Amino acid sequence: MSLLVTGSIGIDTVKTPHGASEKCLGGSSIYFSMAASFFSPVRFVGVVGEDCPFDLTGVFAGRDVDLRGLEVRAGSKTFVWHGTYHEDMNERTTDHVELNVLQEAPPKVPDVFKDSQYVFLANTAPALQLELLDQVAEPAFVAADTMNLWIEDPGHLADLKRLLERIDCLIINDDEAKLLAGHSNLVKAADDILAMGMGVVIIKKGESGSLMRSKSGETFVLPAFPATEVNDPTGAGDSFAGGFLGYVSQTGKTDFGTLRSAIAYGTVVASFTIADFSLNGLTGTTRAKIDQRLETLRQHTSF
Amino acid sequence: MSLLVTGSIGIDTVKTPHGASEKCLGGSSIYFSMAASFFSPVRFVGVVGEDCPFDLTGVFAGRDVDLRGLEVRAGSKTFVWHGTYHEDMNERTTDHVELNVLQEAPPKVPDVFKDSQYVFLANTAPALQLELLDQVAEPAFVAADTMNLWIEDPGHLADLKRLLERIDCLIINDDEAKLLAGHSNLVKAADDILAMGMGVVIIKKGESGSLMRSKSGETFVLPAFPATEVNDPTGAGDSFAGGFLGYVSQTGKTDFGTLRSAIAYGTVVASFTIADFSLNGLTGTTRAKIDQRLETLRQHTSF
Repeated sequence: MSLLVTGSIGIDTVKTPHGASEKCLGGSSIYFSMAASFFSPVRFVGVVGEDCPFDLTGVFAGRDVDLRGLEVRAGSKTFVWHGTYHEDMNERTTDHVELNVLQEAPPKVPDVFKDSQYVFLANTAPALQLELLDQVAEPAFVAADTMNLWIEDPGHLADLKRLLERIDCLIINDDEAKLLAGHSNLVKAADDILAMGMGVVIIKKGESGSLMRSKSGETFVLPAFPATEVNDPTGAGDSFAGGFLGYVSQTGKTDFGTLRSAIAYGTVVASFTIADFSLNGLTGTTRAKIDQRLETLRQHTSF
Repeated sequence: MSLLVTGSIGIDTVKTPHGASEKCLGGSSIYFSMAASFFSPVRFVGVVGEDCPFDLTGVFAGRDVDLRGLEVRAGSKTFVWHGTYHEDMNERTTDHVELNVLQEAPPKVPDVFKDSQYVFLANTAPALQLELLDQVAEPAFVAADTMNLWIEDPGHLADLKRLLERIDCLIINDDEAKLLAGHSNLVKAADDILAMGMGVVIIKKGESGSLMRSKSGETFVLPAFPATEVNDPTGAGDSFAGGFLGYVSQTGKTDFGTLRSAIAYGTVVASFTIADFSLNGLTGTTRAKIDQRLETLRQHTSF
C-alpha cells in the first residue's frame, strides 16, 4: 500500500559516551523512511535548504523511497541539530539547534502522493501537521507524533487538539503523554488521550518499551529489545514509527492484532538504529535480520 | 516444597498522592510470605521487639505460613519505617527510620526449617544473609535481594561478593544493578553480575517490568502489568520475589522455562500489592484472580 511521511531532514552532530558523529544526515523523515522501507514503498515529503550536503537519492538507492516530495528550497538553509547523550543514554541534551527552513512554509504534498492510504506526520507544529494532512485526499490510517513544546503552549495545544480529532493513532513519548493527559499513571494517561479523538495511542518509553491502548479497551505492552549494543539512540523513536507504519502499510490492515505485530517490528527496527551512529545501524541490516530478531524478541517475552 | 524466607518485619507509615496508612504492618518478609503463600507453604524467619503491635498469627490465619521462626525479642524494639511516594510513584523518600532490632543479632533458623529446599534472603547486611544461609543444610535454590547501602561500602561489598558466590539467583533493582556492575546498559550489567557467581539474575525495573538473564545466555523480559490502580507501591519488590519463589517452590523446578512463568506470577502478584495500601491488595485477592490476571498479562504481551 502507499505510505506517506512528512517530517524533518537535518544535519546532525551527535556525541554519546561511545563516540561522536559530525554533520551526519538525520531528521525524523529520514529515519522513518529508512525504517519503513524494509516493509513498504515510502512516499517522502520534506524540505532542505540549498546548502544541504546530502544526496538523498544516493542515500535511499536500492530502496523503494519516492523522493518526488523532496523540496530543495533556494535561499534557505537546512535544519541543524547538535545533541549529547549522557552516561545514562536515556538522558539527552540539545546543545545547538538552527530551525532554518523548518520555520518557513512546509513543503507541498505532490499531486501524485495525494491518494496515499497511510500517513505519518512526524513531529512539527500541529498547525503544519494539519496543513499537510489537508493535502491528502482520503487516508485510511493517519499517525502523528508530537512533543512538549506544542503541549505547553496554549495556542499550539489548541491546534494539537484539532489534529487529535482527525488522526487515527498518536505516537508519543511517556513524559509527553503524562504532560498531555495531566496524569502520571501511563494507562490512565493513555485513556485520557484516547478521549481526545484518535482510536489508538502508542506511548514510547525508550529502553522500557511501549504501551498501546485502543478506544475499544484493548491493551498491548512490549519491552524494548534487550540490546547490549547501544551507541547512538538518535532516531530510535522515528525508526520505531517507521517499522510500525511500514508493517501496517505492508499488510494493509489496522486491526489490533496487526498493530501488535507492527509494534514488535517497530521495536526491533529501533534496536538496529541505536546499535550504531547515524543511519549506519539501519543501512547495515536486512529484512531477514529484522525477521530473525523479531522471533528472538518473541522468545525473550514468552512465558 | 519447603520455602524459607528471612527478612524484616516493620511498623510502616506510608504517604502517597492517593492517601496514607499509619503504623501498618510491613517489612520484606511479611510481603514476601503473603505473596508466596498463594503458591507454596512458607517458613517464616524474622524478629520483632516486645513492642510489636501486630498479631502475626492472626494476619496469616488461613494461610500456610509457619511462624515458628518468628522471634519476639524481650527488651528490643520493632523496626520502624516512614516513607512518602511522590506524584511520580517511582520516586520515594524515606522520612524516618528506626532500625531497632534489625541492628542486633539476626534471628535463628529453627531446626525444623533447616532442611528447606528454597530460600529467600531478603535485603539486609550481606554478613547477616551469609549467617542465615549457613543455617540451612542443603538448599536447592537460594535467591537474595540487596541494596545500594551494601554495594557502596567496601566492607559490606566484600561480604556481598562472598554471598553472590553462594546463591543461585540475585533479585535486584535496576539502579542497584547498574551500581554493582558499574554499567548503565542493563543487559551488560546483568552479565557482569552473573560473572560474580550466581546462575540467574533478575533486575526489577518498577513500572517498567523486569529482565532475567542466565549464565547459559538465556534472556527473559516482561513489562509490568499495565495497572490503572496504583495507590501504594510499598512491598511491590518483595511481593514480586514472593510470587516468583512461591511458584518455583510449588513446581519444584528451576529450569529457565519455569523461571519465566515464575517471573510472570511475581509480576501479577505485585500488581495486586500496589493497588491498595499496606497488605490490603494481597489479602483481598485469591489464587483464582491471580491466575486470571496472568492470562490477561499473557494476552497483553503476545504478538
